[in-house]
Amino acid sequence: MTQNKLITPRKLSGFMELSPQKQILFDKMIEKIKNVYEKSAFVPIDTPVLEYSEILLAKTGGAIDKEIYAFKKGDTDICMRYDLTVPLARYVAMNVNDLSFPFKRYQIGKVYRGEKAQKGRFREFYQCDADIVGLDELSLVADAECLSLVDKVFKALGYKVLVHVSNRNVLFGYCEALGFKDKTQDILVILDKINKIGRGNAIEELTKLGVNDESCQKLIDITLKCGKFESILQEVETLNDNETYQKGISEIKEVYTYLKALGANENCYVLDLGIIRGQNYYTGTVFEAMMPQHPEFLTVCAGGRYDNLAGYYTDKKLRGVGLSIGLTRLFDLLDNAGLIEEVAPTNMDLQIIPLGETLCDCLTLKSYFEEQIVCDVNYENRSFKSKMKEANRLKVPFILVVGEDEVKSKTYSLKNMFTGQQYNLAKEECLKTIVEYLKYKKN
Amino acid sequence: MTQNKLITPRKLSGFMELSPQKQILFDKMIEKIKNVYEKSAFVPIDTPVLEYSEILLAKTGGAIDKEIYAFKKGDTDICMRYDLTVPLARYVAMNVNDLSFPFKRYQIGKVYRGEKAQKGRFREFYQCDADIVGLDELSLVADAECLSLVDKVFKALGYKVLVHVSNRNVLFGYCEALGFKDKTQDILVILDKINKIGRGNAIEELTKLGVNDESCQKLIDITLKCGKFESILQEVETLNDNETYQKGISEIKEVYTYLKALGANENCYVLDLGIIRGQNYYTGTVFEAMMPQHPEFLTVCAGGRYDNLAGYYTDKKLRGVGLSIGLTRLFDLLDNAGLIEEVAPTNMDLQIIPLGETLCDCLTLKSYFEEQIVCDVNYENRSFKSKMKEANRLKVPFILVVGEDEVKSKTYSLKNMFTGQQYNLAKEECLKTIVEYLKYKKN
Repeated sequence: MTQNKLITPRKLSGFMELSPQKQILFDKMIEKIKNVYEKSAFVPIDTPVLEYSEILLAKTGGAIDKEIYAFKKGDTDICMRYDLTVPLARYVAMNVNDLSFPFKRYQIGKVYRGEKAQKGRFREFYQCDADIVGLDELSLVADAECLSLVDKVFKALGYKVLVHVSNRNVLFGYCEALGFKDKTQDILVILDKINKIGRGNAIEELTKLGVNDESCQKLIDITLKCGKFESILQEVETLNDNETYQKGISEIKEVYTYLKALGANENCYVLDLGIIRGQNYYTGTVFEAMMPQHPEFLTVCAGGRYDNLAGYYTDKKLRGVGLSIGLTRLFDLLDNAGLIEEVAPTNMDLQIIPLGETLCDCLTLKSYFEEQIVCDVNYENRSFKSKMKEANRLKVPFILVVGEDEVKSKTYSLKNMFTGQQYNLAKEECLKTIVEYLKYKKN
Repeated sequence: MTQNKLITPRKLSGFMELSPQKQILFDKMIEKIKNVYEKSAFVPIDTPVLEYSEILLAKTGGAIDKEIYAFKKGDTDICMRYDLTVPLARYVAMNVNDLSFPFKRYQIGKVYRGEKAQKGRFREFYQCDADIVGLDELSLVADAECLSLVDKVFKALGYKVLVHVSNRNVLFGYCEALGFKDKTQDILVILDKINKIGRGNAIEELTKLGVNDESCQKLIDITLKCGKFESILQEVETLNDNETYQKGISEIKEVYTYLKALGANENCYVLDLGIIRGQNYYTGTVFEAMMPQHPEFLTVCAGGRYDNLAGYYTDKKLRGVGLSIGLTRLFDLLDNAGLIEEVAPTNMDLQIIPLGETLCDCLTLKSYFEEQIVCDVNYENRSFKSKMKEANRLKVPFILVVGEDEVKSKTYSLKNMFTGQQYNLAKEECLKTIVEYLKYKKN
């Protein structure tokens, strides 16, 4: 294969691709999240990346948002999934008779959004979702479970989060009580972006909608209520007697009771009536988690309750509550902030360097060591010096040098690359030394 | 959201989608493969599912095979990857200055081929690849490492395989010696499909190419050579003195020497000169693994050496050798043959059933048990009887019944659902009983 013209190797922009070293860390995060989900009795599913457009675009009646990767294959209209929630709805609707409810599923996979590529925005990214789906009914215990899961996941990852919780019924009811029931969605959209557009612009937009000054003030005031559950509840409980409003308050109380019963760390949760979540499928509990030490990361995990999960696909009443972590973005933020622990560019514990005609002996030694540690033979045709330099760069903890004399005497020269210590030992002793040091270093 | 017209929930054909129970097993297989790769000092990469068409279609000069999912997004021609080798070539070419060689990488991910959907063929499937890439040079030790990896992986999965090994130089040289150097590729394609089309048809096709009867016979005879390395080598070593042929023989010998030095189980490897591997990028070692107890599965893992990995993208000489497991197909075959161990549809160790007003107490108990086992509360609004029935169906090992008396006495009714034994114990004793039983059952 001789090429006259080379094609410059490049990848699409907006697609994260890591060095192996970083990938090891990324995979470890996935592993930790998966573990927490499994320990909390969630089971995995893995839906296809491609779906019928008809299914994925049910919400918009088939209209293709410019963010969506859509194409035709033969006569079939196909889309790449843009989240894991719509595929979950399709999956549950399809398998409703075989699943046991409440159905607690997790899914960790890539989703696709052809957004304008910009720093921190990805067109392909991992979502790590856990949802609880009930048939007909779903207790508010499920909402508390999802909330408690947020703290568990981030604790496992080694980061502190504060979960801001609200219930959409509070603002639904409040809008209704102020006489704007028909405009609720529009009002919520404006209130949702106050931090982005600023208070002045929000008031202007609300006014355009026909909201008077006093109501504007009231609406903005209520979204500023944020603090300990007990104290905020005390402030807002009797603010309004609208039925929907009171339903929201009572749901918040119930969820909070369960959350405490579950042993959740109360310092990790605040009641924040400014949490709205744009998606209009949320019908009750909503939440967003932030990292208090890194407010610039904005929301690192979010979720809520949706009482009609699969209404486009089935007459059955499926209610759900779940959480989602956009791991690609989170990893990128943490990495840029230097918050990802560094690891060595290799997972090798021991590298064997052959000197002279000892290659086969080294391979046999490798198979001995491999029973317990990660070991490799540097069989490259390079100088000893350059091999040692490379081992140093890769931060390989131990080097075993095997020359012909060593093979004869069955005593090998082992070097600890961190301490500089050198030993002359039989293979069993070498292994013991390495295993002990690795154990010591781990603790 | 009230719908007048429901959309039938369905997934695209040719896309595997498992029940959670099966998914748990599938994920375990991935986990085991990943572990073997990592223990053998391979590091992970995760390239995007989407690539520039120009990159993925370099081989065909941009022509889109009908198998490939290709589309336009804005002005950009995009393809979904159809394997993990081309993305590896692109990745290594892009990052050649930052990687350390030999670069041992593994990647486990979905690839896409819009083939005609038929039983056992998937349009989306997992490939589990491990490759070793060398810059300028790559020792034949790497070939032996990949071969030894095949047995290791399948041993970890719990299945026995026989790896059929050859070296393409043998047939390259043999064709040359018979005077058909120019027709080598065409001849290999025919020989590769003898088992599919039958000997008669193969001879007919070879004759059409201009191969005479005697040569036909010789070519077919050599591809039938299959058996222990030592005995086949003895048979074929002096069959021809063509230089390329002898290069193939000597490479086979060298690889086999390393394979033995690596402690590989010799019973798992045969020299089979009928192994050709269609892909014309292979330049030396080629292999296919089969399951001797299930020849009908055909090849379950394959790979080989390619001495010009990234020739379309870089002038640098990158040599590679690797293996690939099509896990989706393999899982499907094993599952249909009843060779996948059954697991319970849940990973729950304990389910707590509240009776009366004990929900919050149950949640607190859950948080206690969760420290060590997977525990869930059945908070559904259903009868006790139906909850017990469901727990039975899900094969939950233990049930804890918590009524108001139990909360007062702090003594709970624990039932082992497998043995039928019932206990009345404090929570600490419950946990001990469960943990001991689970440990006992695991061994």
